[in-house]
Amino acid sequence: MTTLEDCRARDAADPLRPLRDLFTIPADVIYLDGNSLGVMPAAAPARIAAAVTEEWGQQLIRAWNESGWFDLPQRLGDRLARLVGAQPGELVCTDSTSVNLFKVLSAALKITAEDAPQRRLVVSERSNFPTDLYIAEGLCRERGFTLQLVDEPGQIAALLPETAVLMLTHVNYRTGAMHDMAAISAAAHAAGALAVWDLAHSAGAVPVDLNGGGADFAVGCGYKYLNGGPGAPAFVWVHPRHAQRFWQPLSGWWGHAAPFAFTSDYRPAPGIARYLCGTQPILSLTGLECGLDTVLAAEPLGGMAALRTKSLALTDLFIALVEERCAGHGLELVTPRAHAQRGSQVCLSRSEGAYAIVQALIARGVIGDYRAGDAQMPDILRFGFTPLYLGFEDVWHSVEHLRGVLATEEWRLPEFNQKNAVT
Amino acid sequence: MTTLEDCRARDAADPLRPLRDLFTIPADVIYLDGNSLGVMPAAAPARIAAAVTEEWGQQLIRAWNESGWFDLPQRLGDRLARLVGAQPGELVCTDSTSVNLFKVLSAALKITAEDAPQRRLVVSERSNFPTDLYIAEGLCRERGFTLQLVDEPGQIAALLPETAVLMLTHVNYRTGAMHDMAAISAAAHAAGALAVWDLAHSAGAVPVDLNGGGADFAVGCGYKYLNGGPGAPAFVWVHPRHAQRFWQPLSGWWGHAAPFAFTSDYRPAPGIARYLCGTQPILSLTGLECGLDTVLAAEPLGGMAALRTKSLALTDLFIALVEERCAGHGLELVTPRAHAQRGSQVCLSRSEGAYAIVQALIARGVIGDYRAGDAQMPDILRFGFTPLYLGFEDVWHSVEHLRGVLATEEWRLPEFNQKNAVT
Repeated sequence: MTTLEDCRARDAADPLRPLRDLFTIPADVIYLDGNSLGVMPAAAPARIAAAVTEEWGQQLIRAWNESGWFDLPQRLGDRLARLVGAQPGELVCTDSTSVNLFKVLSAALKITAEDAPQRRLVVSERSNFPTDLYIAEGLCRERGFTLQLVDEPGQIAALLPETAVLMLTHVNYRTGAMHDMAAISAAAHAAGALAVWDLAHSAGAVPVDLNGGGADFAVGCGYKYLNGGPGAPAFVWVHPRHAQRFWQPLSGWWGHAAPFAFTSDYRPAPGIARYLCGTQPILSLTGLECGLDTVLAAEPLGGMAALRTKSLALTDLFIALVEERCAGHGLELVTPRAHAQRGSQVCLSRSEGAYAIVQALIARGVIGDYRAGDAQMPDILRFGFTPLYLGFEDVWHSVEHLRGVLATEEWRLPEFNQKNAVT
Repeated sequence: MTTLEDCRARDAADPLRPLRDLFTIPADVIYLDGNSLGVMPAAAPARIAAAVTEEWGQQLIRAWNESGWFDLPQRLGDRLARLVGAQPGELVCTDSTSVNLFKVLSAALKITAEDAPQRRLVVSERSNFPTDLYIAEGLCRERGFTLQLVDEPGQIAALLPETAVLMLTHVNYRTGAMHDMAAISAAAHAAGALAVWDLAHSAGAVPVDLNGGGADFAVGCGYKYLNGGPGAPAFVWVHPRHAQRFWQPLSGWWGHAAPFAFTSDYRPAPGIARYLCGTQPILSLTGLECGLDTVLAAEPLGGMAALRTKSLALTDLFIALVEERCAGHGLELVTPRAHAQRGSQVCLSRSEGAYAIVQALIARGVIGDYRAGDAQMPDILRFGFTPLYLGFEDVWHSVEHLRGVLATEEWRLPEFNQKNAVT
């Protein structure tokens, strides 16, 4: 049996342990929700304050040049590229994930309309994050495609011969299950389909190799494992073979080849810059810069590979401790056990009380979250493990609190059964 | 002749003068570029710091409920509505102006396709802000419409019988010329066309009455006269008669009727909320909140009407002083003299040196900006007058510096003739 002392020993031996000091973690909180909103980097308050008081406050309009606001989406994109197997100039940080998905899915459908007009399916999973499905649903209606949702990944292969675009999220937001990006992209390409990947729960969490993995387009989120702050701008990547082929539909001035020439006709910028649209929220981009710094700080310690090793160790430990110490309390493991099929979160289900158990844990300072079930899926208790700031002792205490909430049945208190707008 | 003492006396008698204390204006700067990026509200550093350190840093994911992040786009929209003649629930602060224009222009084209399919023109001005034209160009290509640009507003009337959508910016970004929104919207409606207005240089600068003025759709900018900070989110307004008629194409989860139900099919929220798409940049929205506070602080002092009176007094004074004190230096007034045709900026042209003159003024602490000319328009020196933080003595000194730059010919120095990426 694992003990608290074992966990402490593992923290003491953890080469990534110093990275925790890059964050300000609230006292008495064990934060298992970095897959929803990453913890604030300790450098963020001063850096953002400087952007506010010095750049905006003192430089004012001059900051576009003097503080490099002008190419911030590209500069951050070049840094993020290192984390997801992309090259400089292939990626920009901008807009929301939803808006970026609209851009790339639109471009992918245009490629199909030109190269393979008989293909009319956009294929995705019913369990994909809803905004991805909503954006695809809207574009399919407008462009005359059919959005075909599968309940099991195994159903995808049979559809590929008719598929224009296979659109998947790499790590599932509810279950934490991870796809094999390279194998699926290769199968899509072999069948003549394009592969669009959403990296919302991957970037900064698991190694990603966009160029090596054969992706055509990718989008992802800045405020989860990249620790960019609430609603931080997202990112968009386009494989260089596609980047200049089409206008994307959000053809705003920041994607123009010469935005400050103020010409009346649109001429798209070369490469990924054409996937910019309007003026970007500089203060929020500055938060994202601080977040990227925290993930890049792991590079001298082994980078994403080292983070992945620790992430798997944390989630393995969580699963083992839940099974050792919470046995008999009706919890079921939803996340795959196989390392190759797991992201950086662990999800549990329970036939009763999932929402209230999460609330009771939050009251004890263990912050995870809840996702409601539906016809296909049970209610879920979701725990994200960010190896940058979580340790093995945190995992121990989390499971002890979970055991306490279940053993005492304190989750039945009315205060834990009152639903908020967001969780 | 006007004297410096006259200007000081007018400041002393100005009932809006105390509003200047709501801003942090850099020492030795006279800021005439609030039409590009508004000055930082004095409350912004502390308010944004609280959003960073307390909301993000301490509340973390709980801030969506506890600090009201969830409905921030609507809450700010309701406050901004008061400044542009809209009702609560009709407007949201979100995304960029370009992205919002894409949403409403797309909706307007859908209405036309259904109600008047023979109308195939989108009409705008060649001198409109380029991103508006680029977005329209892209949508017209995709939907089979023709973007017809006029060189003179007088050419619009003859096109209206074939026009699907008339898309204009209320106050021109280069010239400062202002349209009569009510008269033009009425003419468009009488001819069966829809009216889309861009309020980028109007919101917070001139009185706007969206409901009374007969607009169908409107968008606008948060970082100019609303002082929301660099790249602050923009806004979008839809007349209630159109709001629920269509999906807008950026059908992301924040525009869903129940975003946290996580259903796989899209069901648009009632009203303006469906014009939201993805998660919004909370830190930048917080900056916008501070900016809106500064404009709303004028309400007890007469609100937009009082700001407009002062704005016209400032721009009248600037024009008069330029003509009195810079005569013979080759400056031409580009902005209309008639109050009803003028926004809150004054633009001058000169056959030579416009860019360098602006740079020499900036070196003296008088910050305006430059916009390059083209076949239709000369190079322009652009000066924005934000009545919230500018006084009559500021106008005096600005003109004295302009006179000095021209009289000494210091603008010919090489350092003022080196072009930057932006300004």
